[in-house]
Amino acid sequence: MYRAVKSNPLKRIATQSKRFVCSKYFPEEPIVPTILSSHIPGPVSTKLNNELGEVYSNSATYFVADYFCSIGNYISDADGNKLLDVYCQISSIPLGYNNPELIKAAQSEEMISAIVNRPALACFPSTNYKQILEDGILAAAPAGLDKVWTGLSGSDANEMAYKAAFMYAHSKKRGENGFTAEELKSVMENKTPGASDMVILSFNKAFHGRLFGSLSTTRSKEIHKLDIPAFPWPKTPFPQLKYPLNEYEAENKAEEDRCLQELESTIKNSSKKIAALIVEPVQAEGGDNHATPYFFQGVRDLTKKHDIIFIVDEVQTGVGASGKFWAHEHWNLTSPPDIVTFSKKFQAAGFYFGNPDLQPKQPYRQFNTWCGDPSKAILAKAIYQEIVKSDLVNHTAQVGDYLYAQLKALLGKFPDKVSNLRGENYGTFIAWDCATLEIRNQVLLSCRAKGVNIGGCGDASIRLRPTLLFEKRHADILLSVLEDVHKAL
Amino acid sequence: MYRAVKSNPLKRIATQSKRFVCSKYFPEEPIVPTILSSHIPGPVSTKLNNELGEVYSNSATYFVADYFCSIGNYISDADGNKLLDVYCQISSIPLGYNNPELIKAAQSEEMISAIVNRPALACFPSTNYKQILEDGILAAAPAGLDKVWTGLSGSDANEMAYKAAFMYAHSKKRGENGFTAEELKSVMENKTPGASDMVILSFNKAFHGRLFGSLSTTRSKEIHKLDIPAFPWPKTPFPQLKYPLNEYEAENKAEEDRCLQELESTIKNSSKKIAALIVEPVQAEGGDNHATPYFFQGVRDLTKKHDIIFIVDEVQTGVGASGKFWAHEHWNLTSPPDIVTFSKKFQAAGFYFGNPDLQPKQPYRQFNTWCGDPSKAILAKAIYQEIVKSDLVNHTAQVGDYLYAQLKALLGKFPDKVSNLRGENYGTFIAWDCATLEIRNQVLLSCRAKGVNIGGCGDASIRLRPTLLFEKRHADILLSVLEDVHKAL
Repeated sequence: MYRAVKSNPLKRIATQSKRFVCSKYFPEEPIVPTILSSHIPGPVSTKLNNELGEVYSNSATYFVADYFCSIGNYISDADGNKLLDVYCQISSIPLGYNNPELIKAAQSEEMISAIVNRPALACFPSTNYKQILEDGILAAAPAGLDKVWTGLSGSDANEMAYKAAFMYAHSKKRGENGFTAEELKSVMENKTPGASDMVILSFNKAFHGRLFGSLSTTRSKEIHKLDIPAFPWPKTPFPQLKYPLNEYEAENKAEEDRCLQELESTIKNSSKKIAALIVEPVQAEGGDNHATPYFFQGVRDLTKKHDIIFIVDEVQTGVGASGKFWAHEHWNLTSPPDIVTFSKKFQAAGFYFGNPDLQPKQPYRQFNTWCGDPSKAILAKAIYQEIVKSDLVNHTAQVGDYLYAQLKALLGKFPDKVSNLRGENYGTFIAWDCATLEIRNQVLLSCRAKGVNIGGCGDASIRLRPTLLFEKRHADILLSVLEDVHKAL
Repeated sequence: MYRAVKSNPLKRIATQSKRFVCSKYFPEEPIVPTILSSHIPGPVSTKLNNELGEVYSNSATYFVADYFCSIGNYISDADGNKLLDVYCQISSIPLGYNNPELIKAAQSEEMISAIVNRPALACFPSTNYKQILEDGILAAAPAGLDKVWTGLSGSDANEMAYKAAFMYAHSKKRGENGFTAEELKSVMENKTPGASDMVILSFNKAFHGRLFGSLSTTRSKEIHKLDIPAFPWPKTPFPQLKYPLNEYEAENKAEEDRCLQELESTIKNSSKKIAALIVEPVQAEGGDNHATPYFFQGVRDLTKKHDIIFIVDEVQTGVGASGKFWAHEHWNLTSPPDIVTFSKKFQAAGFYFGNPDLQPKQPYRQFNTWCGDPSKAILAKAIYQEIVKSDLVNHTAQVGDYLYAQLKALLGKFPDKVSNLRGENYGTFIAWDCATLEIRNQVLLSCRAKGVNIGGCGDASIRLRPTLLFEKRHADILLSVLEDVHKAL
């Protein structure tokens, strides 16, 4: 069991303030982080990671985690350290570790059947699959999108969405005609016209995954793309806003107008038909880059005008963290996106759509062995129901507002170290820039040493991705550690 | 509950023979199929499928399945029909429905933790992940391949293998040099030299998945590829053997030599470096096309000679059905493949490799959020351990030999309807050709109506893909139904 350690710099927090009571959602959660080892990763973690490296790549390991001992917002590592986790498995843990509602779902007969009898859903769907979807994934569907196609990951979801867009655009062009003999012959040679020469348009700094099609739309970092073949698909600039937003309104509007003009110019000058455009509500991996509803409405309008499928990638932004269930709800679009993709915090993955023509009429076109995974859809159902029952989207919006305001005051004390705090009114989906990559990496390491597990993104940014059960008391711990760390920089 | 029906044509079987005792592995399994509805899909299945179609594509549905009532080798549908299943979710159910050993694994604490605390394995691996791998996936590793990288599906596994091959080939070419400025700049534009212009070579009629990279190596059917962009990657002919093999030895050897020559010629004439060649031990989706160990040794030799990574796609052939744990064990290669990919019956997915240089040294190159799924690795462990404990590879080899011999005698009676029985000494991985597509489809439908769920492949082939717990008694039911169906054709 984990003992409190006298050297723990957070112990004083626990005794300083009345705020540090137990978590509302996890009575057995630690009051504060506990750091037992002199470094993180500690000796046990390091030993286990070295052993793992004999059979499985370990080059990106932060530390080896003990998930049996993790609880709520706290992740335990192999050395018994208990860290407040505001990175949450790269933004993919919605309701904390060992959430009792998810354990119930995992123990249910429905789950056990789904695990041991994994179906090929498109050939032998289960009697209960529609109900599982309707009680979870579809109950959460964005307005205007009442159908879903399920897959296995965010990257997979985006690629299926691209396939849907390509097949849709070609079907529209083909009209009542069937496939030509030339199409049927050329496609087996990977050549046009059977293979499409249409393209997907994405934004500079976007991240949409790492499979070959999705990686061709990813523009985050060189290391993600080097040495891998890519489709000759175009990109267009994403606005680079200045902060604080209220001080740069005119400049930011001009920047967004410039990007909209560039977008239209890219569309008009493309020698190939653009089947779809994909955009993240916040470019997370690429640096937590935001744009305003005005910009996104403009993008939506241009895709409508030029007959381009508009795909919103909500893999990281979706499922509550932004203070809305779907981040694109912040935009108040005049017409919904054509496709919204999801994964990560929903555990299940796939894409929502409204127009039935986005699913090809012929069988075996949008197809694979499993076409999703009912065990993940059951988890998504439990996650959705808990979010609704405990009103976690509003909760996260409120905690996010508190955290943002406190961060603004705190980080304002270190203007030579940090800048560009962003994510106001955006739940806990908050980020800022460090002056240099070295400072960013030092902050991440120092936070971890003081018991807060936190992640970076972009060139020198820090992103917060806590659970939806993150409370003010957790925010205060984070703020306290950040203050200590920045003072010591 | 399901009642026996007098009109069931299989009822006589149950009373005719002493062979029809209970299943050795599933005492509660039905003795024979039970067909309650006048058609399959029956009215309940049709209703549920129509309802599902309102929100999820249903164009490829055979019938809606009731997995709670399925057991062992029998799949129940929504109308209470119980069919002997020799298709098994497109070859992905290893140990039958509701297998008690898998239920135990699904109920374990290890599983529950894996489900509710899904980690980002490459950043925060769990303390027990190495042990889970070593007790399952790695214990089953092909000879010479002692490392693994995990993913989510067969298609994903193949794409990760391609990425490994591309990064390996470029690293080798680059030597001690780092990335050039031109590479770093061009890759963000999806252009060479940063984006690779190397290629993956695959065989005519191959199936390696449906994501954008894997689909570029898939050459099974036009409908799988139409309207989707493809990389300009080459293909080379796969032998078309004549059956029975012992009558066409010389001709088949000549055909394999021709394909080996074509392969070498394709390699020599490729204007682009071939980073990897991928091959299935049996081209399943493409028609259950076999080749001999002589051919595969020749392919292995050519890849060695020309410095091409040799990837064996065991997504469908792996995990016991061929009468070996891995089908490529039939080849007695003089050196192991560089990479072997797996999925389907293992539930987990990924690729095995031996050379550590097939995993890039830099972090975040072979990477994604989840990098696998411990819940599936735990299932793979349970599957592997049950296969070993019950000696199911040998069991399947023996049942397969019996089934093959009986099929040879049976199908020999209908030479104008069926031909090219294949899969001798290849476990239950057996297939044959029907004279026409219409006959093939009629056989599949008639078998289903008589209580056997069976699948097709290729242009007009039928493939058998039963569980590893398929016994002689199940083979006899299958044979009896096939005889009835062919007599009535």
